[in-house]
Amino acid sequence: MAKKLDLINGCIDMTHGAGGKSMHQLIEELFLGSFQNEYLHQQNDQAVVPAISGRLVVSTDSHVVSPIFFPGGDIGSLSIYGTINDVAVSGAEPLYLSASFILEEGFPLSELKKIVNSMKKAQELTGVPVITGDTKVVEKGKGDGIFITTTGVGVIENPRIQVSVSRVKPGDEILVSGYMGDHGIAVLSKRQNLDFETSIESDSAPLHELIREIIREVPDVHCMRDPTRGGLAATLNEIAHAARVGMMIEESAIPIRTEVAAACELLGIDPLNVANEGKLVVFCAPEHAKRVLEIMQAHSLGRNAASIGTVREDRDTLVEVRSNLGGRRVLYWLAGEQLPRIC
Amino acid sequence: MAKKLDLINGCIDMTHGAGGKSMHQLIEELFLGSFQNEYLHQQNDQAVVPAISGRLVVSTDSHVVSPIFFPGGDIGSLSIYGTINDVAVSGAEPLYLSASFILEEGFPLSELKKIVNSMKKAQELTGVPVITGDTKVVEKGKGDGIFITTTGVGVIENPRIQVSVSRVKPGDEILVSGYMGDHGIAVLSKRQNLDFETSIESDSAPLHELIREIIREVPDVHCMRDPTRGGLAATLNEIAHAARVGMMIEESAIPIRTEVAAACELLGIDPLNVANEGKLVVFCAPEHAKRVLEIMQAHSLGRNAASIGTVREDRDTLVEVRSNLGGRRVLYWLAGEQLPRIC
Repeated sequence: MAKKLDLINGCIDMTHGAGGKSMHQLIEELFLGSFQNEYLHQQNDQAVVPAISGRLVVSTDSHVVSPIFFPGGDIGSLSIYGTINDVAVSGAEPLYLSASFILEEGFPLSELKKIVNSMKKAQELTGVPVITGDTKVVEKGKGDGIFITTTGVGVIENPRIQVSVSRVKPGDEILVSGYMGDHGIAVLSKRQNLDFETSIESDSAPLHELIREIIREVPDVHCMRDPTRGGLAATLNEIAHAARVGMMIEESAIPIRTEVAAACELLGIDPLNVANEGKLVVFCAPEHAKRVLEIMQAHSLGRNAASIGTVREDRDTLVEVRSNLGGRRVLYWLAGEQLPRIC
Repeated sequence: MAKKLDLINGCIDMTHGAGGKSMHQLIEELFLGSFQNEYLHQQNDQAVVPAISGRLVVSTDSHVVSPIFFPGGDIGSLSIYGTINDVAVSGAEPLYLSASFILEEGFPLSELKKIVNSMKKAQELTGVPVITGDTKVVEKGKGDGIFITTTGVGVIENPRIQVSVSRVKPGDEILVSGYMGDHGIAVLSKRQNLDFETSIESDSAPLHELIREIIREVPDVHCMRDPTRGGLAATLNEIAHAARVGMMIEESAIPIRTEVAAACELLGIDPLNVANEGKLVVFCAPEHAKRVLEIMQAHSLGRNAASIGTVREDRDTLVEVRSNLGGRRVLYWLAGEQLPRIC
């Protein structure tokens, strides 16, 4: 097999996932060449990395976003940033990633190359390398182009850091790092059956540096989350449910772009149900809230950060929103039928 | 949503992957209930585990085997054992797993429950818990029932253990832990377009205990692999290629069941190209070979272990097989077109 991969006109075929020479060629010519690092180049079926000292953090996410290219990002960078964020919100420093690809027969190698390049750039930007991986191929009609599952490993060195939903308690202040709903609206705007005009781009971004700065100054933050699928509403309800608390949110305080609000009105959805991929929700004691907000606002990914409400006692674990006109409504936790395959 | 999941007649729908209340219900009622462990019950988007001391090992694999239930196993246990094996062959003790599910709309909850039960049993049997996970759903026709990506984390405590393809060198003896080709033939026997009669069952099994025993007595083994996709032929060729060596294999020494040989003849394939899911290939110095073989043969997963050949110098990195009649042939590395979706 002296012929090189045709990265311009070639397509994935079943041999690329069957463990033979074709798969080896795909890995050598495309993956190893892009994700250059010493661990991947060990060419074993796993990566061995030096000992680390501190609690270990592991998080995994499959990415099935549709379409795979959207304004502000693609499935490649999303799969890197998304898992880095899930590791980082525990208060950990993300160290390593694995990436596993499920490709559909017929998927253009040119698109795969574009996605791998995007992952490579994301790896360089974040300093978190992809150290091991896997490739499988399924028959045409048994997949949808490309699915990417990434798993992240991180470390919490400081024993004082105890970030967990179980620490959320009445009185805690709730902060968000910026505009809600950008990612979901950017992806929806490119769906074949919708395809509306908007200038909104996905907020897909790695949050670990912003989180590192918060944690360094305020190691006592109670809980952090990135409000992805289901948006802020799902995240707040999940936390309320798990921590057995209620919340009161001030609608006017929630940062939402005019264009996102307009698109949501058009689509008949609530921006608080729309996914984000580069936003942070922080729960902390009220005496730390001002400082956390300042740190967020001083960071490029937190310029529009705001304090949006407080945690309170409530056996019914309701998340309520006080509207701009003073009325109150319960922010319901949707079943989830509105926005499939958003990440 | 007071109604419980209908695990008998219910099906996966798009809401089960959309981040809302339905997804939460699926996770609480099915996944948390099955994979009971303290880490998963933290209910954060990641798991935080205690510090470990030693080199860290990470491995990932997506599982797309078709059919998902086959003689001797299913996609659930396979996804646990497969990743445990990939971690263990580095000489590491596997500690934790993550599991990420990509489900197709319409997939029966009863089958999902069966698969999750199988994973639960595998977790109990191996002592390696699933500590974090993810669930995504794709539209009908955009997936194939269920794909499972698992990532394993392990530790190598003993600094003397240096298991790597780069240590394979001329003179090394090559050992296998038992019969070749069982898994592939078991899966193929249930393919819709083949469906032949055979009593062969998959060898799908966790190898970490067998490996632990080998490593304890012979920490100096050079390289270990589990010859999965592409079979023994792909594994030997990959290692020959990476280590820049050749190999001479004695055909009569390779353990192959009569039924597997017969099925392979029927299908027109070489059993050495057929996948295994519970077999080990070991490369070690000749002075250690006898002891490694004894350890294998004393273990239930290595009863039929055998020494099958030696590594030799060869710039062309050829893997040759000496036939029972004394002739020699090159064991080619297939492109991989024969056996898709075997794991």
